Amino acid sequence: MKKTLQTAVMGVTGYAGLELARLLLRHPKLQGSSPLFLGRAEATAHATPLTDLHPHLLDNNGSRSLKLEPFSWGLLRDRGVDVLFLATPHEQSRELAPAAIEHGLRVIDLSGAWRLDDAQNRSVYKFEDEGSATAVSVQTKSVYGMPELHRGEIKDAVLVANPGCFATSVILALKPLQAQGWIDLDRGIVSDSKSGVSGAGKTPSAKTHFMHAADNLSAYGVFGHRHTGELLEQLDLLPEQVIFTPHLLPIPRGILSTIYVSFKDAKQATEIEACYREFYRDSPMVRVFPSGQLPQIQYSVRTNYCDIGFHLAPDGRRCVIVSCLDNLLKGAAGQAVQNLNVMYGWNESEGLA
Amino acid sequence: MKKTLQTAVMGVTGYAGLELARLLLRHPKLQGSSPLFLGRAEATAHATPLTDLHPHLLDNNGSRSLKLEPFSWGLLRDRGVDVLFLATPHEQSRELAPAAIEHGLRVIDLSGAWRLDDAQNRSVYKFEDEGSATAVSVQTKSVYGMPELHRGEIKDAVLVANPGCFATSVILALKPLQAQGWIDLDRGIVSDSKSGVSGAGKTPSAKTHFMHAADNLSAYGVFGHRHTGELLEQLDLLPEQVIFTPHLLPIPRGILSTIYVSFKDAKQATEIEACYREFYRDSPMVRVFPSGQLPQIQYSVRTNYCDIGFHLAPDGRRCVIVSCLDNLLKGAAGQAVQNLNVMYGWNESEGLA
Amino acid sequence: MKKTLQTAVMGVTGYAGLELARLLLRHPKLQGSSPLFLGRAEATAHATPLTDLHPHLLDNNGSRSLKLEPFSWGLLRDRGVDVLFLATPHEQSRELAPAAIEHGLRVIDLSGAWRLDDAQNRSVYKFEDEGSATAVSVQTKSVYGMPELHRGEIKDAVLVANPGCFATSVILALKPLQAQGWIDLDRGIVSDSKSGVSGAGKTPSAKTHFMHAADNLSAYGVFGHRHTGELLEQLDLLPEQVIFTPHLLPIPRGILSTIYVSFKDAKQATEIEACYREFYRDSPMVRVFPSGQLPQIQYSVRTNYCDIGFHLAPDGRRCVIVSCLDNLLKGAAGQAVQNLNVMYGWNESEGLA
Amino acid sequence: MKKTLQTAVMGVTGYAGLELARLLLRHPKLQGSSPLFLGRAEATAHATPLTDLHPHLLDNNGSRSLKLEPFSWGLLRDRGVDVLFLATPHEQSRELAPAAIEHGLRVIDLSGAWRLDDAQNRSVYKFEDEGSATAVSVQTKSVYGMPELHRGEIKDAVLVANPGCFATSVILALKPLQAQGWIDLDRGIVSDSKSGVSGAGKTPSAKTHFMHAADNLSAYGVFGHRHTGELLEQLDLLPEQVIFTPHLLPIPRGILSTIYVSFKDAKQATEIEACYREFYRDSPMVRVFPSGQLPQIQYSVRTNYCDIGFHLAPDGRRCVIVSCLDNLLKGAAGQAVQNLNVMYGWNESEGLA
Repeated sequence: MKKTLQTAVMGVTGYAGLELARLLLRHPKLQGSSPLFLGRAEATAHATPLTDLHPHLLDNNGSRSLKLEPFSWGLLRDRGVDVLFLATPHEQSRELAPAAIEHGLRVIDLSGAWRLDDAQNRSVYKFEDEGSATAVSVQTKSVYGMPELHRGEIKDAVLVANPGCFATSVILALKPLQAQGWIDLDRGIVSDSKSGVSGAGKTPSAKTHFMHAADNLSAYGVFGHRHTGELLEQLDLLPEQVIFTPHLLPIPRGILSTIYVSFKDAKQATEIEACYREFYRDSPMVRVFPSGQLPQIQYSVRTNYCDIGFHLAPDGRRCVIVSCLDNLLKGAAGQAVQNLNVMYGWNESEGLA
Repeated sequence: MKKTLQTAVMGVTGYAGLELARLLLRHPKLQGSSPLFLGRAEATAHATPLTDLHPHLLDNNGSRSLKLEPFSWGLLRDRGVDVLFLATPHEQSRELAPAAIEHGLRVIDLSGAWRLDDAQNRSVYKFEDEGSATAVSVQTKSVYGMPELHRGEIKDAVLVANPGCFATSVILALKPLQAQGWIDLDRGIVSDSKSGVSGAGKTPSAKTHFMHAADNLSAYGVFGHRHTGELLEQLDLLPEQVIFTPHLLPIPRGILSTIYVSFKDAKQATEIEACYREFYRDSPMVRVFPSGQLPQIQYSVRTNYCDIGFHLAPDGRRCVIVSCLDNLLKGAAGQAVQNLNVMYGWNESEGLA
Repeated sequence: MKKTLQTAVMGVTGYAGLELARLLLRHPKLQGSSPLFLGRAEATAHATPLTDLHPHLLDNNGSRSLKLEPFSWGLLRDRGVDVLFLATPHEQSRELAPAAIEHGLRVIDLSGAWRLDDAQNRSVYKFEDEGSATAVSVQTKSVYGMPELHRGEIKDAVLVANPGCFATSVILALKPLQAQGWIDLDRGIVSDSKSGVSGAGKTPSAKTHFMHAADNLSAYGVFGHRHTGELLEQLDLLPEQVIFTPHLLPIPRGILSTIYVSFKDAKQATEIEACYREFYRDSPMVRVFPSGQLPQIQYSVRTNYCDIGFHLAPDGRRCVIVSCLDNLLKGAAGQAVQNLNVMYGWNESEGLA
Repeated sequence: MKKTLQTAVMGVTGYAGLELARLLLRHPKLQGSSPLFLGRAEATAHATPLTDLHPHLLDNNGSRSLKLEPFSWGLLRDRGVDVLFLATPHEQSRELAPAAIEHGLRVIDLSGAWRLDDAQNRSVYKFEDEGSATAVSVQTKSVYGMPELHRGEIKDAVLVANPGCFATSVILALKPLQAQGWIDLDRGIVSDSKSGVSGAGKTPSAKTHFMHAADNLSAYGVFGHRHTGELLEQLDLLPEQVIFTPHLLPIPRGILSTIYVSFKDAKQATEIEACYREFYRDSPMVRVFPSGQLPQIQYSVRTNYCDIGFHLAPDGRRCVIVSCLDNLLKGAAGQAVQNLNVMYGWNESEGLA
């Protein structure tokens, strides 16, 4: 009789993959069997020690027992894998997710491949299989993996599309207010968001060079960042109702979004705080700050929390909301594990405290 | 016959004071006489080598000839000082500026003491002499020291109030558009501004501790920062028409403001670029970037430039403007020297290239 | 019947204290009773939420149930405290440790108060009670809290003097070689050590100001750092046999010591690696790297590991050893918990993985 | 009649090349003619604005008049180039320098191509033309471009080999003492050197990725760094007499070398300070610090100074020397301009203050 859920991670070489490996290795519900770590068959000729890639994972006896193994469906079957995490580029996730579902696996995909229902929103990704019968069918099965919004659907999903890091910080900050219908959308929403360099990925580039990122700040992707579609779909917004501007911070990890909204009617700070507390009452991974106290990146970095605070103008109409999270945890690997917990009926914060 | 202008700097111990010392020491028009560096008489018992404070100023023969001398009006008179720079806390500038004018000196004040015409805007400073006859009279003489806006008045001013660092970045970015009447003020302006730690001053505090500032980002002074009044007065705005949110960046110096405006009528990017280029045609210290190219902090840091770029939404109505400068130069000491240049009819960028 | 060990922490406001709080709160063996967090009675008028000091400790329901309480021996007795951690300045530890022993408590002191047996070595601390009967008696009871060297004595100690952060990195790197008698002490040992800013403490100062620490490197305490005495005593060295030079790194946490030794006789790299592996065979918190592979700060930061690697010159006589650890964990709070584990016969890495 | 010296820079895309461009553009003796900026013909199809590569060089009117032009000997001749700076990889410098000399140009080479007289020391570079008649002949003409040591030879040199950045910091710190014969070489010299990331070059790599460099410190090239040969040749040392260990610092620029020496006989601190002051009396770019005061990276960064300080042990035998410089200025482009000044009989610090 099978005791422990068997997980597998495809794409463990990146930053989110490493965090995912760490989380799964110490997850209380997964202690009976080690996760299977997989690399592309072309690049992974034979099983290699994972610690060659990530010396951080070494234990004290120099054990190199954790292996990176070449991906094959046969291997997944032989090891009895139940859940496959895809920490792969989105093109690869477009290929692997449908096949994995075919093989009877449940999939948690950390890429942007299956997050967007609307073809227009998806168009920035230029998916090669866009509109194919398979893609359409798989997208239908996909659930947007934000437990605070879609807990019920995630529980039974075969494919969970783990949200974007920026999108998580903005959606969690706005959803409670938007659900109340309080926001004056005619005046527009602005999200000025800032992320640490790990958000730009592990591949060395001019952008991620220390000399570019350090002692600097730059905006990018203005009016065109891929995460914008997630905001539109999850918050029921039109493109002209929101501006989202990402910036590259000279820090390794962490996101802070400063969000500007106007209310249709003047509000009290206590109403707003109550709205947030009510919305997230049963959500262990969101921390609502008292009115006028704002989160900082350092409070949530290396945790799976999304911290939310706000400051209301004296007129009660204009509000500045600050939302912080760790882009590799609540913005990626941590939220993926949170989704796993929901899928198997475990405590939502299991292995994430 | 007197050949060289004699300058004096009161308050050379802070970051802006050090930058000012550097700029004045190498200013081509001031090579005939060394600036006089002054400290408070109580704290500066006798002349001490300036290099004990700032080893950066050492020359190769270990010369400690630059002195910090105890302030007195007699000393200023004996040395024939023409212009007094105040790099002092604003309370001290409130005391010193009127007396200096009495003594026939011209004053360039880097503090917030004399920037604001409106008593309501000044109220955040809680000046002790608020409303006194002297204060009212001196404020009338004060000119807001932004050459790009007030070149003519600065030329003849006895008291130049050097602008705030954040205010400089926001005002220079908005003034050309606001002067055209293009901005839809009903939709509100947002300036999400970020500054390096030198903006928080040299006094050690919890906020400037490396452990707080590094690997972090935090917003502060929401709906209440002192520079807001400068925006209102220089841009003819009402308090409800602009939100200005400063953030503390984990870098030593540099400011980036991301500014969000809506236009009353749809614009072309070429119109906007032309508007900026026309407005700053004779302003050597503002660099306008081509449409769609955005400045980064690293381009203007350690220069006296304010860099301005923008990105227009496809609808032609919403515009993201990015403005960068070095908070210690164009945001403080550099702009002070630029004002000096204007006051004496020199090339505006003299000693600042 | 008493089930769970009751711990108390005096001095939870500093960086090491916060780490200690985190470790104790999640320690598997301490889940039955919350640690008692104490502040000086003068400064802590009444119980205050610990999260006001450390928002990092907030949980999602905004609970502020963790309290900082005013210290008193009565409180310790009423709560049935077994072990008292002192994360206090050394002067305070000199006062509190003897009294705590009198009250029948076991003490783990993180300060430098009780680490040194030799009066000459202690003299840099200028203890007021130096030479008093109590101090002499308590020092006799004190055990140097490095489990890798003194596991047996720690088990039964009433007072464990937790080692200095720099000292830990140097002693663990040198002890195995020194125990073999291989090092040519006539040629001298050099330890060029570098630490992140948290090692300089939480009190804001010129040294810990972001503007001083960032983008900089500086040596300090040359020929006079307090940790030198620990090296001499634990490694049986004379002052002229070792130079220890600390440097302040522009990073929050982590220590790297680059250590230069000469051997009396030429060695093989395999001999050296075997010597380390044998010495640390039963020490779960030391990771020995393969010959020629050197640890980096990022591998051990936020862990309780001390990582050790080396590179042997072709002549087999000169050796460069690199030792890394997290100054707040293996260099402070983590080692304190490791000592707790040894004192109570638990797995040495319990709560530290 | 030719008025102004005509310079050309090959390889202006890297960090040292950019610094060199900045220095030459504002050099007082070169104001009559703009330097010629050259790129490899293959990579530079036609003249492109230099500001596309380096927006830092933009002036306020958006002028893109500085051009990067495709390299050809014909172009150099047509423009009347007198001096060619090579800021190229060493393989390229091995090709270009001999040809340039053939064409009658004087060459200042910033690479490691022509620094080493000894074939054994050169072997780490694996030059393809090693031992060829041309290479042997050109090496004979090459002068090691450290003005403080070789001013006379540099004056008339056709080929100046600009020193390595690390080597400059170590050689300048040791030469005065070594020239006196004071150092006990039997006890060995240790140079523990640390450099900012710009020293690792502009090509993005795992090593220069922000996520590797930030919040980290690592040693590399132990017992095998290329600059070691320069130490041996310039300081007359045998390989077994010195250990040089470079480390990668999480800062953009700056080098600090902590150097450990023993003296044959006990010295007074005053003797040592006097030795340094005498040696560098006519060297404007070296700053000797008073005994016991140590330079920090921040004092010399963005200057062309090499700062030297020391701390003598109470025994008068062991001495810790700290040497700091900016790796892109005194360690590269600044020293190249210093060499230019010497070659043309100008003030040695011309354009470098």
